[in-house]
Amino acid sequence: MARFLKSRKKVKGAAPGSLIFVGKQNIEVPRIRLFIYDRQSIFEKEFQSIDQALKAIDAQKISWLNIDGLHDIDVMRKIGEQFDISPLALDNVLNTGQRSRYFEDKNSSTILTKAVYYDPANNHLSSEQISFVLINQLVISFQEKPGDHFEPIRDRIRNNIGRIRSSQADYLLYTLVDSLVDNYLINIEEIGSRVEELEPRLSDPDKALSNMLFHYKTEITFFRKTIRPLKEVMTRLLRSQTNFLSTESRAYFLELSDLVDHSIEAIDTYFSMVSDQINLYNTNISNRANDVMKVLTIFASIFIPLTFIAGIYGTNFEYLPELHFRYSYFVMWGVMLSVAIGMLLYFKKNRWF
Amino acid sequence: MARFLKSRKKVKGAAPGSLIFVGKQNIEVPRIRLFIYDRQSIFEKEFQSIDQALKAIDAQKISWLNIDGLHDIDVMRKIGEQFDISPLALDNVLNTGQRSRYFEDKNSSTILTKAVYYDPANNHLSSEQISFVLINQLVISFQEKPGDHFEPIRDRIRNNIGRIRSSQADYLLYTLVDSLVDNYLINIEEIGSRVEELEPRLSDPDKALSNMLFHYKTEITFFRKTIRPLKEVMTRLLRSQTNFLSTESRAYFLELSDLVDHSIEAIDTYFSMVSDQINLYNTNISNRANDVMKVLTIFASIFIPLTFIAGIYGTNFEYLPELHFRYSYFVMWGVMLSVAIGMLLYFKKNRWF
Amino acid sequence: MARFLKSRKKVKGAAPGSLIFVGKQNIEVPRIRLFIYDRQSIFEKEFQSIDQALKAIDAQKISWLNIDGLHDIDVMRKIGEQFDISPLALDNVLNTGQRSRYFEDKNSSTILTKAVYYDPANNHLSSEQISFVLINQLVISFQEKPGDHFEPIRDRIRNNIGRIRSSQADYLLYTLVDSLVDNYLINIEEIGSRVEELEPRLSDPDKALSNMLFHYKTEITFFRKTIRPLKEVMTRLLRSQTNFLSTESRAYFLELSDLVDHSIEAIDTYFSMVSDQINLYNTNISNRANDVMKVLTIFASIFIPLTFIAGIYGTNFEYLPELHFRYSYFVMWGVMLSVAIGMLLYFKKNRWF
Amino acid sequence: MARFLKSRKKVKGAAPGSLIFVGKQNIEVPRIRLFIYDRQSIFEKEFQSIDQALKAIDAQKISWLNIDGLHDIDVMRKIGEQFDISPLALDNVLNTGQRSRYFEDKNSSTILTKAVYYDPANNHLSSEQISFVLINQLVISFQEKPGDHFEPIRDRIRNNIGRIRSSQADYLLYTLVDSLVDNYLINIEEIGSRVEELEPRLSDPDKALSNMLFHYKTEITFFRKTIRPLKEVMTRLLRSQTNFLSTESRAYFLELSDLVDHSIEAIDTYFSMVSDQINLYNTNISNRANDVMKVLTIFASIFIPLTFIAGIYGTNFEYLPELHFRYSYFVMWGVMLSVAIGMLLYFKKNRWF
Amino acid sequence: MARFLKSRKKVKGAAPGSLIFVGKQNIEVPRIRLFIYDRQSIFEKEFQSIDQALKAIDAQKISWLNIDGLHDIDVMRKIGEQFDISPLALDNVLNTGQRSRYFEDKNSSTILTKAVYYDPANNHLSSEQISFVLINQLVISFQEKPGDHFEPIRDRIRNNIGRIRSSQADYLLYTLVDSLVDNYLINIEEIGSRVEELEPRLSDPDKALSNMLFHYKTEITFFRKTIRPLKEVMTRLLRSQTNFLSTESRAYFLELSDLVDHSIEAIDTYFSMVSDQINLYNTNISNRANDVMKVLTIFASIFIPLTFIAGIYGTNFEYLPELHFRYSYFVMWGVMLSVAIGMLLYFKKNRWF
Repeated sequence: MARFLKSRKKVKGAAPGSLIFVGKQNIEVPRIRLFIYDRQSIFEKEFQSIDQALKAIDAQKISWLNIDGLHDIDVMRKIGEQFDISPLALDNVLNTGQRSRYFEDKNSSTILTKAVYYDPANNHLSSEQISFVLINQLVISFQEKPGDHFEPIRDRIRNNIGRIRSSQADYLLYTLVDSLVDNYLINIEEIGSRVEELEPRLSDPDKALSNMLFHYKTEITFFRKTIRPLKEVMTRLLRSQTNFLSTESRAYFLELSDLVDHSIEAIDTYFSMVSDQINLYNTNISNRANDVMKVLTIFASIFIPLTFIAGIYGTNFEYLPELHFRYSYFVMWGVMLSVAIGMLLYFKKNRWF
Repeated sequence: MARFLKSRKKVKGAAPGSLIFVGKQNIEVPRIRLFIYDRQSIFEKEFQSIDQALKAIDAQKISWLNIDGLHDIDVMRKIGEQFDISPLALDNVLNTGQRSRYFEDKNSSTILTKAVYYDPANNHLSSEQISFVLINQLVISFQEKPGDHFEPIRDRIRNNIGRIRSSQADYLLYTLVDSLVDNYLINIEEIGSRVEELEPRLSDPDKALSNMLFHYKTEITFFRKTIRPLKEVMTRLLRSQTNFLSTESRAYFLELSDLVDHSIEAIDTYFSMVSDQINLYNTNISNRANDVMKVLTIFASIFIPLTFIAGIYGTNFEYLPELHFRYSYFVMWGVMLSVAIGMLLYFKKNRWF
Repeated sequence: MARFLKSRKKVKGAAPGSLIFVGKQNIEVPRIRLFIYDRQSIFEKEFQSIDQALKAIDAQKISWLNIDGLHDIDVMRKIGEQFDISPLALDNVLNTGQRSRYFEDKNSSTILTKAVYYDPANNHLSSEQISFVLINQLVISFQEKPGDHFEPIRDRIRNNIGRIRSSQADYLLYTLVDSLVDNYLINIEEIGSRVEELEPRLSDPDKALSNMLFHYKTEITFFRKTIRPLKEVMTRLLRSQTNFLSTESRAYFLELSDLVDHSIEAIDTYFSMVSDQINLYNTNISNRANDVMKVLTIFASIFIPLTFIAGIYGTNFEYLPELHFRYSYFVMWGVMLSVAIGMLLYFKKNRWF
Repeated sequence: MARFLKSRKKVKGAAPGSLIFVGKQNIEVPRIRLFIYDRQSIFEKEFQSIDQALKAIDAQKISWLNIDGLHDIDVMRKIGEQFDISPLALDNVLNTGQRSRYFEDKNSSTILTKAVYYDPANNHLSSEQISFVLINQLVISFQEKPGDHFEPIRDRIRNNIGRIRSSQADYLLYTLVDSLVDNYLINIEEIGSRVEELEPRLSDPDKALSNMLFHYKTEITFFRKTIRPLKEVMTRLLRSQTNFLSTESRAYFLELSDLVDHSIEAIDTYFSMVSDQINLYNTNISNRANDVMKVLTIFASIFIPLTFIAGIYGTNFEYLPELHFRYSYFVMWGVMLSVAIGMLLYFKKNRWF
Repeated sequence: MARFLKSRKKVKGAAPGSLIFVGKQNIEVPRIRLFIYDRQSIFEKEFQSIDQALKAIDAQKISWLNIDGLHDIDVMRKIGEQFDISPLALDNVLNTGQRSRYFEDKNSSTILTKAVYYDPANNHLSSEQISFVLINQLVISFQEKPGDHFEPIRDRIRNNIGRIRSSQADYLLYTLVDSLVDNYLINIEEIGSRVEELEPRLSDPDKALSNMLFHYKTEITFFRKTIRPLKEVMTRLLRSQTNFLSTESRAYFLELSDLVDHSIEAIDTYFSMVSDQINLYNTNISNRANDVMKVLTIFASIFIPLTFIAGIYGTNFEYLPELHFRYSYFVMWGVMLSVAIGMLLYFKKNRWF
């Protein structure tokens, strides 16, 4: 019930910018992990307290501070104070019921976005709000719960694969968002191939199928709603006045923007595919109802008149001349067969079977 | 009947700008409440006459004049004269059948907007026009009837919570509009969760459900119509040339603009969800009709031919040889069972059950 | 038949700008009325000939020349010559089958618009093309037929109510167009409240209702088509380069533009409301068909097997042992009741009633 | 089959700009007609060869060269060489399967457009590509086949009616295109009035009507597809940088642009009207099916139980006590009548008739 | 299953810009063909290794390097190094699951586009990604598999037909893309004519037809999805700042852009045509169901009451007076005929047949 819109009830009447966590607590204590690296060196550590982590950050190098679990307002407050981020920005990070958004502060650029998880067993999509704050050479990522799509990026940093160690923090930011969008495509492909697999079942419609079709439509609608706002995020980010992106990273973000378009187009294609399948399903149901009706009509139209004829000669009238003719019974059979054959020919002519 | 469009009949032919109240009178005497505050001090009073209230306003401090009940034209006229607001602007405030709008005068900025109330007992939405006029450090809010969503804001002023006491009047204006939009989201969530709850009932459709689905569609349509124009209000306000917004408040209004987008998107999502539910409902009705038809066809197709056979041997022909064979009756049963079993196999093969 | 598109047949092949009246003649002789007024004085007269009327116009004051009936080409030609209006502009005024349009000439600004009349007895909308030409302090209004929505404006001029006598001709133009748009809203409200009243009848659908719903849809479509182009008129007029509008009147026309938006939105709302009602109607028809089918199936499925059983014992076989058992008849009743009760329980379980 | 998209097969692989005729040859030898005129004089002649025609053109006067039949590539080539028109432009003129388009060359402006012909006997629309090339004071018009809508224009030139003889070649171009658009409106009116006439037949739906409705929808779709691109033609032409239009003609083309909008809006209105009629048709079919079902259900539900009762007393059990009571037969009738009346009351209560 | 979205799974987590082939390997060893030409000379050769091919390129002349088969990453890497193309651009070429795109690098312009192949036997569309990289006077084309639409262009180069040998590399690029778009139109025409041919079959709907209609809808949807992004490609290419197009070629690309619009419009027309056919199919199915129902109702309504009457006189009551009247049997026939004729007249009156 909470999937399409997260409850804002508890924030009702609170002052804007007062830090309030909106969402479900998924972890007992926030997990704080820090990467500090440059071309030569790399430092990776998990901290128990935010104060220690903040102290460890080295402004000369690129830092990536990842926080799993948003319920501890204190962590947020300290980060805000340390880097002079406005409470409004942090409040957005804490409110997990938001659309994907991009906004800037005097010191920081913030991207709110969504990771999408697909549970193949239940055919169920869920999303997690992941926020990125870029402050000079520091990227802070906030996640609702432990577990993410970033492990391959961590490996690339650790093992110095690709350009990541030799690039700036904006490239790291790009890599992180890119891995989320990549994941959209993987999930779209997964759900899409399942939708495409339903195609052959449409010719033999049953109720379970109709429920499944509408279930997929709901999931795809949820997916669309989740990823659509990212288009606007990319546009705003690329049009931003505060040149926080290097020319080089700009090319990567342009690339990413095209990938977002590609994802949205792909999900839209599956949306209309599942809509068409529902229509075909309904057409087939109508066809089948029509077939059932034809069977009924053929049987009823043939046998009801015959039964009537038999009924006539089942009456007990004293004066019923035909009863006494020798061949009446066989004549009756002849009439009945003629009627039946005539009807069958009529139905044949009208291509009922 | 009056919900989707308020009657303008009584204004027909009146000169533009002549102050005429359009709406329903909800209170006997307008209730006039004034807050005057700054960082240090706070003054709160309810006045019997508008003249006293106007006299009490202190241009050095921030004032919030709230008027419940719009039917007293005199109040409007005096406010207009005091602050030199054009009659056209005031006429708009008095006409409660308007869309949300933003417009500026030489001295004042006016926001017409709507508060939405949801009555959970009757599943019924209603709206109230709330207008805000900003003149330098004064915010005047006009409400159609007593009772509003502003009580938490009054508490924040009284108890100096958050930034409100240390900010300017434009921040107060932001806070007031924000509380209305927040309320949209709360109501959308309420109505949305009810719509989501209908999902399981769709597999067993009945007429009460179809009426409920269309009822929700009507309510959501009303909601959409009510909040959609607010998008344009935000755009016009943020593009306004007359820098009445401080840079700081601008950030808050930008935030608010995103919240309005979020609300519109959320209501659109529920709109399409309820439309999909109606489609699923119809599909299930068709499925069920098909099932009913199958039951009928199976019974009729099996028993009508059998009855016919029995009818044949119920005839009273004198010469009906089969009647006199010893095992005729049992042969007839055998034939009948064969027919019935043949039909059942045919239906089974066609997956009718 | 002529409502959605007026016949242009008679103009086929005519040179552009040759004055040709397209429409239906509604009055024998054009009625020519002139108002001349300023703050101090007012002059009102009906003229027999256009020459006299044109002579009476006083360039120092504001003049309003109203002409009912467009079939007299001579009147148009003389006006065109007097004020040097291009034949193209006048040709547009004469062609009553146009969309609402705004265009400018070197001397004049022309607004073609539509008055809408609603006949509540027949639920029928009709429209009349009303054109306004503004030349300095002169407004000329052309109407297709006598009778209009302008009487309250004439009274305001006569009795010096509101700002009209102390404003310029552009304000008069605003007032006239405003009265037409006001009338749209009144008619939308009328037709809309009728549509809203149909709601309760939907739960008991009959054929008269379906015809009524589609009738309303046609009327609302006609209404939409009629008022939609006015949006473009307002945009073009407000963006016009030839500052023919005073700053003051500009504010009024902006207001009017919002009113036009409001009207279009209102008619769109009723359009989608009536579309939804048609859908609900169809859903209810399906529901009802389903109910009818259930009644049939219940009766047929119960009684056809029972009749079959009775038929068995109505056969006249010589050797039919059950016929001779003493309690056979009562056993048959027992079997029949068991079958019937079994079927009813099955239907009950499947929630057929 | 070739109506919605003309075959391009024979051009496959040809170099762009190589002159290739795409279409159906409608005339044996191209018909070449030339008008040369100015205010004072007029010269009109039909030529056998394009060379003679090209020699006859007088650069001091306005010339209109009309060519019926495009299959003679030689004619095109010579015109192209004479006026230095790019092969690409001429290739477009020869390819009759194009959308309406406007493009410019260093010397010439080309408008590709469509004449629409309506065959009322078969309710069939067809289109012909008509291209206009404007080179200084020369207009060349290319038609696919003999017969056009331009005869009234020729008469206006011959008899010096209207402004045509005293205007430039761009006015001639306007007049020609205008006559095509005028013709769209005449055809829309023709087809539209037929669609409006179908309205009363909808209350008594039959299969011929459904085929007719879908036939009209196809024709209107073809019409839309044909005239829609003309909107873009007008926009491009009016925004053209190469001031080939005089200020005066510009006003006429603006007028024409509005007429194109009007046509598109009109055809869209009829498109949605015919769509609504199809929906109403389907609703009425459902209503009727429902009525048929009710008749069936009423008859079956009443008589099947009664037949069952009769069947009971048609059995031949030896011990069937009721058979021997004196008034059993009349009691049976009483029971039967009660059942029938009860059922009828039930159906009446449920408003089945 | 892979048609609508190509699998990206194997790229998950890879660093952006690392060259990874996404697609199906269609050829064992990439086929490398090179054309070098100018006005005077022409050189054409197939190479075994990319190194030799790269060495053979003559910067003074126009070169066209065509590579069939993308799975050999080494080929890509060497090309990238030779011409200093960014890995990001080359990665896009290798990922065959992309939308059509246009992007620029410091040295090169890249167009990703799709060739469409139509298999008439299976009514099946497939697409192949074809990428073009333009670097000064060199065009590199990358194809997924051998076999293409470029053979006529090769002939034009070999035999010096048209402008190709005397134009620059941008003209070659235009010719290549143009041949793909031309092919779209040919395929649209093919599939479109098949859709148009279905029209007459709609009046006699069967299940095979409904499956065929939805099959065509799926194919057309796939086609639309494939060619739609090309519109954006043309827009970006024509708006590109890096004047890589000569003024002359610009005209050709403008032409091409119009052709793309034409293709999209054509496919959209067939999309809505097939949608309309599906609707007509459904309407005809309903009509037919209605006819079947009528036949059933007519038979049942006539014969069920008659059978009831016969049933009455088949009862074995001892005291059943009518049985003993001499003409009872004939009276019964009279009553039955009256009932039957009455019913038939009623159905006739209601136009059931």
